[in-house]
Amino acid sequence: MEFSSKLLERAVNEMSQLPGIGKRTALRLVLHMLKQPKTQIQALSEALQSMRNDIKFCKSCNNISDVDVCEICANPHRNEKIICVVEDIRDVMAIENTSSFKGLYHVLGGKISPMDGVGPHDLNIESLVHKVKEGQVEELIFALSSTMEGDTTNFYIYKQIQAYNVQTSTIARGISVGDELEYADEVTLGRSIVNRIPFETSLKS
Amino acid sequence: MEFSSKLLERAVNEMSQLPGIGKRTALRLVLHMLKQPKTQIQALSEALQSMRNDIKFCKSCNNISDVDVCEICANPHRNEKIICVVEDIRDVMAIENTSSFKGLYHVLGGKISPMDGVGPHDLNIESLVHKVKEGQVEELIFALSSTMEGDTTNFYIYKQIQAYNVQTSTIARGISVGDELEYADEVTLGRSIVNRIPFETSLKS
Ligand SMILES: [Zn+2]
Ligand SMILES: [Zn+2]
Repeated sequence: MEFSSKLLERAVNEMSQLPGIGKRTALRLVLHMLKQPKTQIQALSEALQSMRNDIKFCKSCNNISDVDVCEICANPHRNEKIICVVEDIRDVMAIENTSSFKGLYHVLGGKISPMDGVGPHDLNIESLVHKVKEGQVEELIFALSSTMEGDTTNFYIYKQIQAYNVQTSTIARGISVGDELEYADEVTLGRSIVNRIPFETSLKS
Repeated sequence: MEFSSKLLERAVNEMSQLPGIGKRTALRLVLHMLKQPKTQIQALSEALQSMRNDIKFCKSCNNISDVDVCEICANPHRNEKIICVVEDIRDVMAIENTSSFKGLYHVLGGKISPMDGVGPHDLNIESLVHKVKEGQVEELIFALSSTMEGDTTNFYIYKQIQAYNVQTSTIARGISVGDELEYADEVTLGRSIVNRIPFETSLKS
């Protein structure tokens, strides 16, 4: 792609670094921005930068937060004895949206995937195991997506905490195998939390 | 969508202002940015802002440029007597990419579309008509997309310059009717420039 302007070229190149945004899409977005008021591009830039620079991760659950401990963890009405283990903050948002879960979360930040070079130590597993060891947890709900990587991650964590006095469950597989959690409809996702089954049972099926 | 962070929410809202970027896509992009080095988000922000603030439009052809007169208009090896009329800077890029055209361009900045509230005076038509009146132009090539709006725009310009001594042509319709110019393959687009036909002929077909 030949550009008549270095400024344009640089903007397109930077935008096309984003996942799923090719050069043509980047060009379309950037040309759209040229037609917007300068203040709007400034607002976008500032929003992205202050997010990147100032955002925090909850000390307890690793959820994205503006404060040290996130709203969910800080809420006295939530049951801290039940922890729902998820890959990603988007899964927290999806489950919160169903209003069917009143425990806390633990955000792993991904799943074990040797293909992508993601091992157990790249994820927030240790702090979860620590919570269990401390006897703070009565039940762990595995809510990872039902892919090979999700199953591997569940099983890895399960082996770490098996010796301790904690119940484990996985969300009911009302969600089709292989589907991403965040795209599930609210009803199915809500029901899969309510109908969760013991993790040992899920191993046998 | 409920956010656990105002910073995240603001970033997602700003990103989802862009055309074709919904809230979910914006969230995916923004969460990706959180995993990138701060310097990369800064580079993106700076590239967008300096583009928006400092970019120029060529005084002669309205192409995007970093200087007052774009590289194409300033190139003494190009034939200034032949002007290719296009909607958008992306069309300039697409035609330049074929290396089949050695004249100059005139970027209208859109096409006449009463549905979208775009009239002739919202486009850079006057300066084009001026060039023709001054006797600077031997041939105008209409290279607008072959939609109703494109045809209307061609015809509007044609009526304005009809009285003057200028040849008019449209690019050969090797490109399927209704297709956007910028998505045409190079060979088809290049050929359609070479095989252009007099505009009057195109009216009869
Ligand atoms: Zn938290
Ligand atoms: Zn120019």
